[in-house]
Amino acid sequence: MSEQIRIGIVGFGNLGRGTVEAIKKSADMELIAIFTRRAPESLKIDEPNVEVVHISNVEDYQDKIDVMILCGGSATDLPEQGPELAKLFNTIDSYDTHAKIPEYFSSVDAVAKESGKVSIISVGWDPGLFSINRLMAEAIIPQGENYTFWGKGLSQGHSDAVRRVDGVKDGVQYTIPADAAIEKVRSGVNPELTTAEKHRRVCYIVAEEGADKAKIENEIKTMPNYFADYDTEVNFITEEVLKAEHSAAPHGGFVIRGGETGADQNKQIIEFSLKLDSNPEFTASVLVAYARAAYRMYNEGQAGAKTVFDVPPIYLSPRSAEDLRRDLL
Amino acid sequence: MSEQIRIGIVGFGNLGRGTVEAIKKSADMELIAIFTRRAPESLKIDEPNVEVVHISNVEDYQDKIDVMILCGGSATDLPEQGPELAKLFNTIDSYDTHAKIPEYFSSVDAVAKESGKVSIISVGWDPGLFSINRLMAEAIIPQGENYTFWGKGLSQGHSDAVRRVDGVKDGVQYTIPADAAIEKVRSGVNPELTTAEKHRRVCYIVAEEGADKAKIENEIKTMPNYFADYDTEVNFITEEVLKAEHSAAPHGGFVIRGGETGADQNKQIIEFSLKLDSNPEFTASVLVAYARAAYRMYNEGQAGAKTVFDVPPIYLSPRSAEDLRRDLL
Repeated sequence: MSEQIRIGIVGFGNLGRGTVEAIKKSADMELIAIFTRRAPESLKIDEPNVEVVHISNVEDYQDKIDVMILCGGSATDLPEQGPELAKLFNTIDSYDTHAKIPEYFSSVDAVAKESGKVSIISVGWDPGLFSINRLMAEAIIPQGENYTFWGKGLSQGHSDAVRRVDGVKDGVQYTIPADAAIEKVRSGVNPELTTAEKHRRVCYIVAEEGADKAKIENEIKTMPNYFADYDTEVNFITEEVLKAEHSAAPHGGFVIRGGETGADQNKQIIEFSLKLDSNPEFTASVLVAYARAAYRMYNEGQAGAKTVFDVPPIYLSPRSAEDLRRDLL
Repeated sequence: MSEQIRIGIVGFGNLGRGTVEAIKKSADMELIAIFTRRAPESLKIDEPNVEVVHISNVEDYQDKIDVMILCGGSATDLPEQGPELAKLFNTIDSYDTHAKIPEYFSSVDAVAKESGKVSIISVGWDPGLFSINRLMAEAIIPQGENYTFWGKGLSQGHSDAVRRVDGVKDGVQYTIPADAAIEKVRSGVNPELTTAEKHRRVCYIVAEEGADKAKIENEIKTMPNYFADYDTEVNFITEEVLKAEHSAAPHGGFVIRGGETGADQNKQIIEFSLKLDSNPEFTASVLVAYARAAYRMYNEGQAGAKTVFDVPPIYLSPRSAEDLRRDLL
């Protein structure tokens, strides 16, 4: 084993915890420190060789860390931390506010070009692996349509929305791809489908004692943007069942392209899918593989903001080019 | 539209014909010439702006063609043409003799480094897109297993084998992935499976008049390497049915990785699949997208043999980086 890639983590929520686990499965990497805004001693981390450091001291680690993996959220953490940390480190993040990616890319790119570091933004599965599949499928079969389905998966935003309904004590929401829509797309007929036609929404709700369940159900089903346009199912369960059966964070989805080639319009279907028992652990595993890529691109002399589109697959693997050509090509 | 990428094709079998069609769907490319070992005037090509040239004159086109797409076979054409043409052109080929890829890579690499050209070898779907998925899935989920299934697809090698059996007038063989094996792999149990356990083989045979069908069936089913280890089905049909129902060249398959992440061994399944009505047209479409990449890598100053592992996804698309980040990331 040659020298290891030294990794830092910023933020210790579900994604940060998943990143710790993913680094353990990567023999070519070493986790040096976890940075937090909280009091470092308040974090429960069972990793004797990993420092826990307040984020205000991050500059001291400039020569001790090769790649910093940013595990904060897209709403407020990353817009600030992304450009800030790109001044000091090669970075990886999972920025996922699709509409604001161009703006975020520019702000990180300016800093990283100045500092000479590589920052790969919007890494994960969507944006991330799904994006790569949308791009490659479109490039290979120019005449066709891309379809992205999400689920079955726990949606954080929609779960928050049902929990805000009057009389709801707790609850979760699953986004589920509509089977009929998937089958239509797989058949290659390239239907026109709205997001609502592609997905249904299933809620599991714990009602407050004495709450009016019919009123709760109606309020959820008619909630604009979140549920009104969708086929929505509302189930009432007990707090015990919620805890026992709905504490995991599964997710997944499909990217399907149906297209035609040649004078005879031959149908060609390309499909990529994920079925994940743990969404944060999988996303973390993608971040860690791209941390390897960032380290290599930096050592090659590259600098600036990058996305998964810019990364050759070979940079993701710890194995040699010769081994990969022999074993996996 | 900026200036177009000028393409040449060497070889005019099914793959070469598919390549002509794929270039037509690529507005940023122009097909300049098709090179053949046959008498050029004997080729039936309905493309008024495309020259048909004897391969012996290929040197005259060094300044007229940016990327040469080699559409010959892996057995005898490419081992000779690959290194030969890498002296003069950026090249793309679909070399698919897995066991000899390292040797082929070396022979092309030496020449392309010397000539300063880029040669992307072994492009298509397997090797090619399937290889990328094997590599990326393994890099992201190090603890797990890759499974590759082929089919439903017409296998050229096995069809040739049944046609050599005494009493067989004509016939085709389909490789079909075994549903039970796919379901097991998708469930995440990571079973041990031989190629024979993963696939079954279905033959459609036109027997010579008066031939002993039982003897033919037995001879096919017991043929070593090709059929003996497999669940093989032999159907006898008429010449008319063969022509009507078995003239297309469908293919496809699946790459599935099942693995675990985290301390709780959460299951994660990554799957990539293709369902192709025309195998040669799809393979040609992949070659054409990688021709775009070769052109860009050459213009960047790269040289030598490359594989799909070395190519950033962004180089496959004719669209700008800004557009791709906005629309597909």
